[in-house]
Amino acid sequence: MTSLDETHDQNRRSWVASANGHPDFPIQNLPFGIFQPHGGAPRSGVAIGDEILDLKEAFSLGLFSGLAREAAEAASGATLNPLMALGSAARVALRARLSALLDEAGAERTKVEGYGTVLLHKAVDCILHLPARIGDYTDFYAGINHATNVGRLFRPDNPLLPNYKYVPIGYHGRASSVRASGGAVVRPNGQRKPATEEFPSYGPSRNFDYELELGIWIGPGNALGTTVPIAAADQHIVGYCLLNDWSARDIQGWEYQPLGPFLAKNFHTTVSPWLVTPEALAPFRAAQAPRPDGDPRPLDYLWDDGDQATGALDIALEVLLLTAGRRMAGEEPIRIGGSNTRELYWTPAQMVAHHASGGCNLGPGDLFGSGTISGTTTDSFGSLLEITEGGRKPLALPSGETRRFLEDGDEVVFRAQCRREGFATIGFGECRGRVVPAV
Amino acid sequence: MTSLDETHDQNRRSWVASANGHPDFPIQNLPFGIFQPHGGAPRSGVAIGDEILDLKEAFSLGLFSGLAREAAEAASGATLNPLMALGSAARVALRARLSALLDEAGAERTKVEGYGTVLLHKAVDCILHLPARIGDYTDFYAGINHATNVGRLFRPDNPLLPNYKYVPIGYHGRASSVRASGGAVVRPNGQRKPATEEFPSYGPSRNFDYELELGIWIGPGNALGTTVPIAAADQHIVGYCLLNDWSARDIQGWEYQPLGPFLAKNFHTTVSPWLVTPEALAPFRAAQAPRPDGDPRPLDYLWDDGDQATGALDIALEVLLLTAGRRMAGEEPIRIGGSNTRELYWTPAQMVAHHASGGCNLGPGDLFGSGTISGTTTDSFGSLLEITEGGRKPLALPSGETRRFLEDGDEVVFRAQCRREGFATIGFGECRGRVVPAV
Repeated sequence: MTSLDETHDQNRRSWVASANGHPDFPIQNLPFGIFQPHGGAPRSGVAIGDEILDLKEAFSLGLFSGLAREAAEAASGATLNPLMALGSAARVALRARLSALLDEAGAERTKVEGYGTVLLHKAVDCILHLPARIGDYTDFYAGINHATNVGRLFRPDNPLLPNYKYVPIGYHGRASSVRASGGAVVRPNGQRKPATEEFPSYGPSRNFDYELELGIWIGPGNALGTTVPIAAADQHIVGYCLLNDWSARDIQGWEYQPLGPFLAKNFHTTVSPWLVTPEALAPFRAAQAPRPDGDPRPLDYLWDDGDQATGALDIALEVLLLTAGRRMAGEEPIRIGGSNTRELYWTPAQMVAHHASGGCNLGPGDLFGSGTISGTTTDSFGSLLEITEGGRKPLALPSGETRRFLEDGDEVVFRAQCRREGFATIGFGECRGRVVPAV
Repeated sequence: MTSLDETHDQNRRSWVASANGHPDFPIQNLPFGIFQPHGGAPRSGVAIGDEILDLKEAFSLGLFSGLAREAAEAASGATLNPLMALGSAARVALRARLSALLDEAGAERTKVEGYGTVLLHKAVDCILHLPARIGDYTDFYAGINHATNVGRLFRPDNPLLPNYKYVPIGYHGRASSVRASGGAVVRPNGQRKPATEEFPSYGPSRNFDYELELGIWIGPGNALGTTVPIAAADQHIVGYCLLNDWSARDIQGWEYQPLGPFLAKNFHTTVSPWLVTPEALAPFRAAQAPRPDGDPRPLDYLWDDGDQATGALDIALEVLLLTAGRRMAGEEPIRIGGSNTRELYWTPAQMVAHHASGGCNLGPGDLFGSGTISGTTTDSFGSLLEITEGGRKPLALPSGETRRFLEDGDEVVFRAQCRREGFATIGFGECRGRVVPAV
């Protein structure tokens, strides 16, 4: 685990005024991403308040030396994959230097501030892209409340399968269709066969849903045929994001046996574009929640005392819905759910160690989804499937509208923040997508 | 479907003497690949008999013009992805030109032959790599006899699930661990829980298996949110290979519910390195086998008259096993199984159309596995799981050895050939891997 240092000091303020008190991007966060200013090419940047610091430009201006320069150089291309391939030391050095450069009391403030719009872009004027070329995308199922809720729909008396508390269940997802926050999400067509119909038919999904997940960016990784010991797993996590695992429940129900979800999930996955680093999250690590009596101890390859002590994350998540009606009326999204990453049954390090435990090679730019993160009450569930019990109990919105599943025009927004007494609050930015009609 | 032309003429012979009568690579085949000559860098080539024509060098020598030049230029990098991104017209033109250049009666024979070892490398002196940087890898389950055999192990009276004859079942695999033929395959460790044991344990897979599949290389592909109509699907298939979907049955049995195979499959997948083009396979297209009475007609988005008429492939496949004992004794591999791609329930075009039917974007370098291709008799099964009925009936080898599943030191070799009266036989080259002990 990263130690706390002056970059975490809650009293540190930035000369970028919008950063101070910013709900997501104060100087204590400094997430990396790939942005595109109006008329320019995609490049790496760092979110600071309502602005984006142009990392490539900062590198060109000679603002870095030593390890920080190595990291900034790696981050000077059109993706963050080379930065992800470096060990954490270079990333930590870059963070420290960026924090100093943006500090309102920094020794070089005058010079850096003087670069003005060469160095800083208004975020609202930029397009945000995926931070990396994704190698492979894997979706876990570590949200035990979600697994229980979904299992209960099929097996009321025995919702969790016997392997769940031993195996960090996961499956391979589709990398090509992962997109950064903000775009349209086309309702998929597919084969559906409701219980009420004798034969399947092909057409637009009728049970279109979101899933609230944490995304985990991977690097440097391991060679094929080798493993990643759990105690070293943290070294291969380069950042976090929010992830919406859009799901077509009717397509899923018909296709998923015996080999798992396929077209029900692979038409689109949305991630928040900023890579929030393990360093920024260092104050928000938590002990793994004690397992209920009777739960097995994880097998040795998944057990590490340090991981048990600080391997979980304390990130408050929320889901908001903006219906077309409310958008037309100029109103704000409505909160329909929210939970916390502490609800995960497996830590990110356990996911990494498990994934590599058979020799599968992980690499820079791989992406994990955590699985849907639900709490234990309806208002904390991370999908409509759970909130509406498979569509049987429609959700009543304050606007008078109801939802079994998502309708065309609905926009789903995830937000997340980390709060802890004595530390500045940091957040993830939005993970947003709007459902548009099937082709 | 590609029309037949002079490149398919069985009387055409090459001035590369080893090509004439070659079981895999006569002048009628001309598969593309990425090879590395001793001391050189990886580059694209074309297999011709026991030699490899250096495509990059041929391009540099100015041997191509027009569309063929465009294709050769695209193939001049370290992967074939740019070639895959082109439409078929350029690939067809390149094939025609290569066939003419290598023809023993070709007008430019003297000039081309004169380039000698600048242009031709002995294949035995070269390393063969993956032909492409794989985007996403998807494994289908279209071998209906395999699906039936495996299903019968779990559900003797009802082996096929209700969706099988409607949905080309598939799931996402791991792209990072796909490797070209020839290397060691490390037996994976993982969680196994045999029925005889109360708790799972972590250790080397005890039920290590191969799966005989056809690989399908994809390009150019479709944009996210759009589909590929079945009638156009063939335009997005750029070649075929053999694929060994190495499988750890004990890990699979414990982990796979409810989301499908994960670590049981992702530790290694082996492909034959040569991309055999749709053009080379044009004489070996076949009508889709008539469905048994009572089987449903595929839904419209999976139905095309042309695909029904010529969308299947007639490729004879075989599996050979070389045990450590026989290798030490200098003996040859033993044939333990073999079938034909005509056993597939779904055509490659149906797989493409289905994969994109929900809007998932396919792209150059994507790879599909067909699913295990078994016939209906034990000697035609494509995995040991089927041959030994889950390990219960060991396979007796002529050497006196027996196998429930693969042992360390075992080498599995797939071969495939296309034979048709009036046409030169063409093949795929080997797909080979040797099991080495777990870490």
